[in-house]
Amino acid sequence: LLTDFGISDHYVAALKGVILQLCPDAVLVDISHTISRHSVAEGAYVLSQAAPYFPEGSIHLAVVDPGVGTRRRRIVIEGRRCLYVGPDNGLLIPAARAEGIVKTVEITNKRLIRREVSATFEARDVFAPVAAHLASGLSIEDIGPKISNPVELSWGEVSLTPSGATGRVLHIDRFGNIVTNLPSSSLSGIPPSSPLRVRVGAAIASASASKSYGDVPEGKLIVLAGSGGFVEIAVNRGSAQEVLGAHVGAEVELSFSLPTEGDTYRR
Amino acid sequence: LLTDFGISDHYVAALKGVILQLCPDAVLVDISHTISRHSVAEGAYVLSQAAPYFPEGSIHLAVVDPGVGTRRRRIVIEGRRCLYVGPDNGLLIPAARAEGIVKTVEITNKRLIRREVSATFEARDVFAPVAAHLASGLSIEDIGPKISNPVELSWGEVSLTPSGATGRVLHIDRFGNIVTNLPSSSLSGIPPSSPLRVRVGAAIASASASKSYGDVPEGKLIVLAGSGGFVEIAVNRGSAQEVLGAHVGAEVELSFSLPTEGDTYRR
Amino acid sequence: LLTDFGISDHYVAALKGVILQLCPDAVLVDISHTISRHSVAEGAYVLSQAAPYFPEGSIHLAVVDPGVGTRRRRIVIEGRRCLYVGPDNGLLIPAARAEGIVKTVEITNKRLIRREVSATFEARDVFAPVAAHLASGLSIEDIGPKISNPVELSWGEVSLTPSGATGRVLHIDRFGNIVTNLPSSSLSGIPPSSPLRVRVGAAIASASASKSYGDVPEGKLIVLAGSGGFVEIAVNRGSAQEVLGAHVGAEVELSFSLPTEGDTYRR
Repeated sequence: LLTDFGISDHYVAALKGVILQLCPDAVLVDISHTISRHSVAEGAYVLSQAAPYFPEGSIHLAVVDPGVGTRRRRIVIEGRRCLYVGPDNGLLIPAARAEGIVKTVEITNKRLIRREVSATFEARDVFAPVAAHLASGLSIEDIGPKISNPVELSWGEVSLTPSGATGRVLHIDRFGNIVTNLPSSSLSGIPPSSPLRVRVGAAIASASASKSYGDVPEGKLIVLAGSGGFVEIAVNRGSAQEVLGAHVGAEVELSFSLPTEGDTYRR
Repeated sequence: LLTDFGISDHYVAALKGVILQLCPDAVLVDISHTISRHSVAEGAYVLSQAAPYFPEGSIHLAVVDPGVGTRRRRIVIEGRRCLYVGPDNGLLIPAARAEGIVKTVEITNKRLIRREVSATFEARDVFAPVAAHLASGLSIEDIGPKISNPVELSWGEVSLTPSGATGRVLHIDRFGNIVTNLPSSSLSGIPPSSPLRVRVGAAIASASASKSYGDVPEGKLIVLAGSGGFVEIAVNRGSAQEVLGAHVGAEVELSFSLPTEGDTYRR
Repeated sequence: LLTDFGISDHYVAALKGVILQLCPDAVLVDISHTISRHSVAEGAYVLSQAAPYFPEGSIHLAVVDPGVGTRRRRIVIEGRRCLYVGPDNGLLIPAARAEGIVKTVEITNKRLIRREVSATFEARDVFAPVAAHLASGLSIEDIGPKISNPVELSWGEVSLTPSGATGRVLHIDRFGNIVTNLPSSSLSGIPPSSPLRVRVGAAIASASASKSYGDVPEGKLIVLAGSGGFVEIAVNRGSAQEVLGAHVGAEVELSFSLPTEGDTYRR
């Protein structure tokens, strides 16, 4: 389960109750319910990072859905390993693409959904029952017709040259580590400990290429291949977000050359 | 499980450990542990919203208990569908009333509770073991004597007239949606898209009646029948709480007539 | 499971997915994932408070690990009741010591860990698979060689005299209750309702000894034997942290004599 419903309200529990009514043996695992509200891209990122570690046959119910109650489609994607249930707004795409999409169907079978569908809580009334029916063995063929054009989502453009890379902030984690949309491979030519220049939005700083957070003194800025396949900007035992004032979506520029700024940060 | 214990401490885990020791097959589902501390009314609201979606036979262990360690009673309520375990302070009442109360008993059987009862953590030492024993099949008759006067709780008074409605803020959810204690039916005579005047505390704004968040342009204030049976005040892709500066308990007034304020907000 | 990974990212879900792949019947219980980042002592405290309530045979996977990716050892501790899996930095010690340590082994068996070990996410690649293999019945002998010198951790020094006690703030819970490292027994000679003088950092206040939060009027400061075996400083229906401006690690001094300050707080 992944949503932007937060953990204070009854919303997530209602989903779980609905699922357990239809499929009492379901094993429920939360991925995150504190995705920034309505942030489809952040939800897609977190889902795509978690999904590869789940057992084959898992059903991912993901709802970050600013268009709830409007005419956007509701879909189920069959991937090579897992099923994905949620709105057709790109949220499910990166996780499903990573394992390979077998097919996508639109949820149209009215017998699978709750009799009264609230205009503001389709997660409870449509997506949760569908996920529970799938967990109970329902075939994806019984959900609805195949569609060939689910809404796509990309991580945003990146520009990679031998001397640098430009992209965007994709996510900022609890530690203040800044996850960019630059693939880890963009660091492959850079020797460990190489000095780098980093720009995030208007903030500029010098940093070192590194393999892990502990490779540099406390408080030093590092650029490393993160655990999820993307370049991350971090501070050893500190918060890169605080140092650089970053926010999701800000432009990121790495320059693989000696910084001229010394060790100071410019904001 | 519903508490105001938060998610950072060991409190909730201690409950779960105690339950799993006594009933290893229990399926544990969190409703919320971030109810505002000591806010019995908010806990009662969230519990009552989640409970109807849980399977028949579920046991709801709910503890928001500013009187812990004092002489207030500890009770189990048998509803038509589920059991409710917690303090006798009204917390369990709205959820149990909604399904129909069969009977209420006071927890007096000392063999069901932990030998050393901490004065500050009855949830671990009393309520969790009782819930676990019930989950293992203990009859409610073995808990203690029937009582006929559990402490009541209401959502607060509302005033409904053809031209408007007055009530209070019951809850503010993660999206900044303001849940009022006005029943959804108070909007039943209002055509969709009708202009309304909204007052929350000292803030006054114009809004439209609507069926879902996406029916109006981004940033517009709407009044709708929420998924839980109460009138909600919301902003499409925004936060009504931020726009109106609302807090739980503030007075809410809806006027079903053309606003004179245009589209501006007054605080 | 106890970590400082937070609840917004995919980190905890990745652990759970890895465990469920290797041990589909595992019952997963979260203790806390919002330990202050890199705070080994706070993690050790919360783990030690929760662990005694879990069933015998439980496996505690705990990761608060500022040294991730460096050469610190990875260990499994066999206690008299439970197993503990995590970094060798003291995190597991208080919980394991409380039940009695049978033996400690270093994790060296490469067949138990994921093929590609990320330098920044050993919890997913090393600790979670080891915990899952143990849950599936692997013997601790197959993990690696016995070690005799795990890194220790203490709650910090305390000084106890008949007229007072000095120690430190160990933890501040969601209610603003200040948990000190003073054992509850340091209050054993003090009659209920006795006046006390409390100093936390530079803040000085008068308080009463008490058995539970509700024993004094609202807003009054009390000192009591907390549910976890340590002295706590609390405010009835309020936050001692807000009143005293406390933070984890600050010095705490209790004087068991009539306060001279009346009922005022000095900061």
